[in-house]
Amino acid sequence: MTIIDRLYERVKEKGPVCVGLDPSEDVYPAGFLKKFPSPAQAALQFCQEIVAATADLVACYKVQIAHFEALGVEGLQAYRDLLRWLRAQGLMVIGDVKRGDIASTAAHYAQAHFGGEFAADFLTLNAYFGFDALAPFLPYLAGGERGIFVLVRTSNPSAAEFQDLVVEGRPLYERVAEKVAAWGEGYRGQSGYSLIGAVVGAHPGVLARLRPRFPSLFFLVPGYGAQGGTAQDVAPAFFAGNGAVVVAARAILAAHRGKPAADERFPHYAREAVLAMVEDLARCLP
Amino acid sequence: MTIIDRLYERVKEKGPVCVGLDPSEDVYPAGFLKKFPSPAQAALQFCQEIVAATADLVACYKVQIAHFEALGVEGLQAYRDLLRWLRAQGLMVIGDVKRGDIASTAAHYAQAHFGGEFAADFLTLNAYFGFDALAPFLPYLAGGERGIFVLVRTSNPSAAEFQDLVVEGRPLYERVAEKVAAWGEGYRGQSGYSLIGAVVGAHPGVLARLRPRFPSLFFLVPGYGAQGGTAQDVAPAFFAGNGAVVVAARAILAAHRGKPAADERFPHYAREAVLAMVEDLARCLP
Repeated sequence: MTIIDRLYERVKEKGPVCVGLDPSEDVYPAGFLKKFPSPAQAALQFCQEIVAATADLVACYKVQIAHFEALGVEGLQAYRDLLRWLRAQGLMVIGDVKRGDIASTAAHYAQAHFGGEFAADFLTLNAYFGFDALAPFLPYLAGGERGIFVLVRTSNPSAAEFQDLVVEGRPLYERVAEKVAAWGEGYRGQSGYSLIGAVVGAHPGVLARLRPRFPSLFFLVPGYGAQGGTAQDVAPAFFAGNGAVVVAARAILAAHRGKPAADERFPHYAREAVLAMVEDLARCLP
Repeated sequence: MTIIDRLYERVKEKGPVCVGLDPSEDVYPAGFLKKFPSPAQAALQFCQEIVAATADLVACYKVQIAHFEALGVEGLQAYRDLLRWLRAQGLMVIGDVKRGDIASTAAHYAQAHFGGEFAADFLTLNAYFGFDALAPFLPYLAGGERGIFVLVRTSNPSAAEFQDLVVEGRPLYERVAEKVAAWGEGYRGQSGYSLIGAVVGAHPGVLARLRPRFPSLFFLVPGYGAQGGTAQDVAPAFFAGNGAVVVAARAILAAHRGKPAADERFPHYAREAVLAMVEDLARCLP
């Protein structure tokens, strides 16, 4: 069973929630940061408390490396330690790194984020460079223990600027999805999904267009919750309740806002928010 | 005088060579790595010796973060220390990070690579997300001390896969260049060049197409030397010998290959290779 099949099984069992671990002052309870000798230690501890309160409810976690990179060397040490801690518990983790470069450089990123200290189960990648950006990651996929999500159509306001440009009568993102599906053809697991999936934001029209055409692509769907997407918006990402995970970060991490005893009980509120999200999605999934 | 004007003046004085600091076993002399307690310390020392031997000859340096990321936390410490050491000498440095994400995430990357421990003078960025990917970097440009190079048309074999797709009769990369030029309009320095420039590979046809249409874009041109580009290939990147820097990494860093006493004299061979490149470019520039 490859890692994408394990993710598929986990979605079947727990539902498709992927908690985004994006630690920052913006989501900490008021008194949290000052309890720690450094922002990096606060970030690590905050994420660990969120995970401890939610691990039995989720499909996987996505860790945004930018939030750790902003804290410098010590931040990246916390990123490394968080990924190791998550994976040591058997939890699946997507390293949200969105790297993309020429092949000789991408080989170093592959070493860093699949082979080295920052090893994740899945990575997000940017394919503006074409196939070269992915090629060095593929040897790591051969054992079935690593997977990739390539940016296809993102969830941000200016995404349409380039991604929706029309190429031969179809949006650019669809052309990207075609290439991604073709690259992943040799990496399909038992579930039918490929170790090479796609990042597709919570746009119902985009999801409805891509889902039936690319049955082998597992979707990583950002944009739910704080970014404005609803369960109905993400419902077209699924085949029979599977084939996608839906990311929520801020809506979970800052669920304590305005609640009593947030400083102590923020993990409890995160858990409640995940439970609500699992139910919200279950109601709307086909 | 903004930093892009300083780069312009430096190109006028020294020529347009940008040495790419991409340290790895592939470019070290045979006995180099084993002199150090760790690969990260070897990477830092190697780059410093190359810089010490070439600093008076070049326009600027470009440091490829992937090579340091591959070495984990200690590698990123070396990246931080290298950037600090370069900038403390008044040398201009491009952090080749090619980050790109939604605005709330890009804000953390901007903090990391302009405001924080990894601060560089210039950064490379990926604009697949549209303007959102750049917006959080712009406040750092306001003081005139930071600049950006956005990926427009890259130098790798599969670059054409998406970048050359035809959108309304023109290649996608030209549409990207248009947007980049428009975003940079308010950031033009005395030289006429904007703090927001473009990465355009050593393709003479692409450079000849873009150069006259986008006079405010300073070009960062990879692909010379080991990647196959010649001085004639990069000549169309220039207006009167300025407006671009040409990157060479491997051709400089591994210039010692097959030469006598490479272990001790590799900085000397790097210097000779830079001198040859400066002359090679000077002969071909308009």
